[in-house]
Amino acid sequence: MPRYRMTVEYDGLPYVGWQRQENGPSAQGAIEGAIFRLTGETVSIRGAGRTDSGVHARGQVIHADLSRVWVPEKLCTALNAHLGQAGERVSILEVMAVADDFDARFSATRRHYLYRILCRRAPPALEAGRVWWVHRALDAGRMHDAAQTLVGKHDFTTFRSVHCQANSPVRTLDRLDVTRDGDLIEIRASAQSFLHNQIRSLAGTLKLAGEGKWSVEDVRAALDARDRRACGPVAPPDGLYFMQVDY
Amino acid sequence: MPRYRMTVEYDGLPYVGWQRQENGPSAQGAIEGAIFRLTGETVSIRGAGRTDSGVHARGQVIHADLSRVWVPEKLCTALNAHLGQAGERVSILEVMAVADDFDARFSATRRHYLYRILCRRAPPALEAGRVWWVHRALDAGRMHDAAQTLVGKHDFTTFRSVHCQANSPVRTLDRLDVTRDGDLIEIRASAQSFLHNQIRSLAGTLKLAGEGKWSVEDVRAALDARDRRACGPVAPPDGLYFMQVDY
Repeated sequence: MPRYRMTVEYDGLPYVGWQRQENGPSAQGAIEGAIFRLTGETVSIRGAGRTDSGVHARGQVIHADLSRVWVPEKLCTALNAHLGQAGERVSILEVMAVADDFDARFSATRRHYLYRILCRRAPPALEAGRVWWVHRALDAGRMHDAAQTLVGKHDFTTFRSVHCQANSPVRTLDRLDVTRDGDLIEIRASAQSFLHNQIRSLAGTLKLAGEGKWSVEDVRAALDARDRRACGPVAPPDGLYFMQVDY
Repeated sequence: MPRYRMTVEYDGLPYVGWQRQENGPSAQGAIEGAIFRLTGETVSIRGAGRTDSGVHARGQVIHADLSRVWVPEKLCTALNAHLGQAGERVSILEVMAVADDFDARFSATRRHYLYRILCRRAPPALEAGRVWWVHRALDAGRMHDAAQTLVGKHDFTTFRSVHCQANSPVRTLDRLDVTRDGDLIEIRASAQSFLHNQIRSLAGTLKLAGEGKWSVEDVRAALDARDRRACGPVAPPDGLYFMQVDY
């Protein structure tokens, strides 16, 4: 069967998350529904990463096997038409025909995420649900310094959900950069793969460094503790964006 | 009575516009409601500009007269708490105590707007309602060249709504810049004041230039016609942001 790779953008707010679940609408279910309405086929698509409810995607990647051959641009346009008619907040940015050994999840060599924190006294009106609102200034330089102690290959037990199903807590964090643009702080994280809630756990802990409550050494000590209880408060899903997948 | 100047951000989507109206919720009504719940006072506030339904604000400015003296920061925080409790998509960014000859509308010396166009094949999922989606590439350089023929003091009859209530169609456009950032085209417009639907009329006309349908001379001829029928299609409210007011 011809296999198609698709790059997907979605608003995390109306969904229980990427993955199809019994308890509400999912981004995966939205796309599978559009494929069914277009082709009459019941397919199970696979995404490069599972995002939690409220987490957004600008560059999730999926693959799907369809029974007939499509011109990729036409498949893209037709799926977007069906998604739009259903009122879904999901958009297919690009479709490519790929070989059947391409797997959106297992072929991925690197995943890139962005976490956005809005630092100001007033709550967000336009960016509500799209940022973590922190009503005080954070020191981005200090956050970046603390972040550098987390880059590399480590046991990230401190920074993963107790519900994480990965066999190993060891991951290699290739990049964890913190920059400021006005009242917005942006954290960019890249790795081959992440643990469940890892980036939100890192963001919540870096916020403590940005407030001056934790030193760079405190952040390093939390990593070294390999103990979930040593983690700072987990940051909300609102500010997290799945940006890009490399293959 | 002490007068307060406030800088206001709002999401235009849930409102019939800035101005209080009978036919639905307004941003003005949201703030007046918050003031009433906080102080028990029924006040009529004045904004620097009236925005239509769907038009957003990042820096609308208003003034309000209250019977008692407030610490500005406390007034700001208290109003935001009341706006949040009411589920309004309005946020007060800053409050200043001002002299009673300050008038948000009549003291304004310049108003700044931004119009955002997303040019790509796929519809926006994250930016739905926040951009004008145009599913083809536009030539930003050509749009900028056409825009420069509109800068200056002109009779803008072509570019104002037939419902515009201004006495004169003459306005001085200080700035009309078109730039590109990836698949986003941004139009920045500044003037002491604008006519009703002027920026959306200009944006819709510049889009024709960006598509290559109209030449720079066609845009200039539309201005010179001083005839509403010479205007291009009016751009939707989604992409328009009231950014800043100078005093």
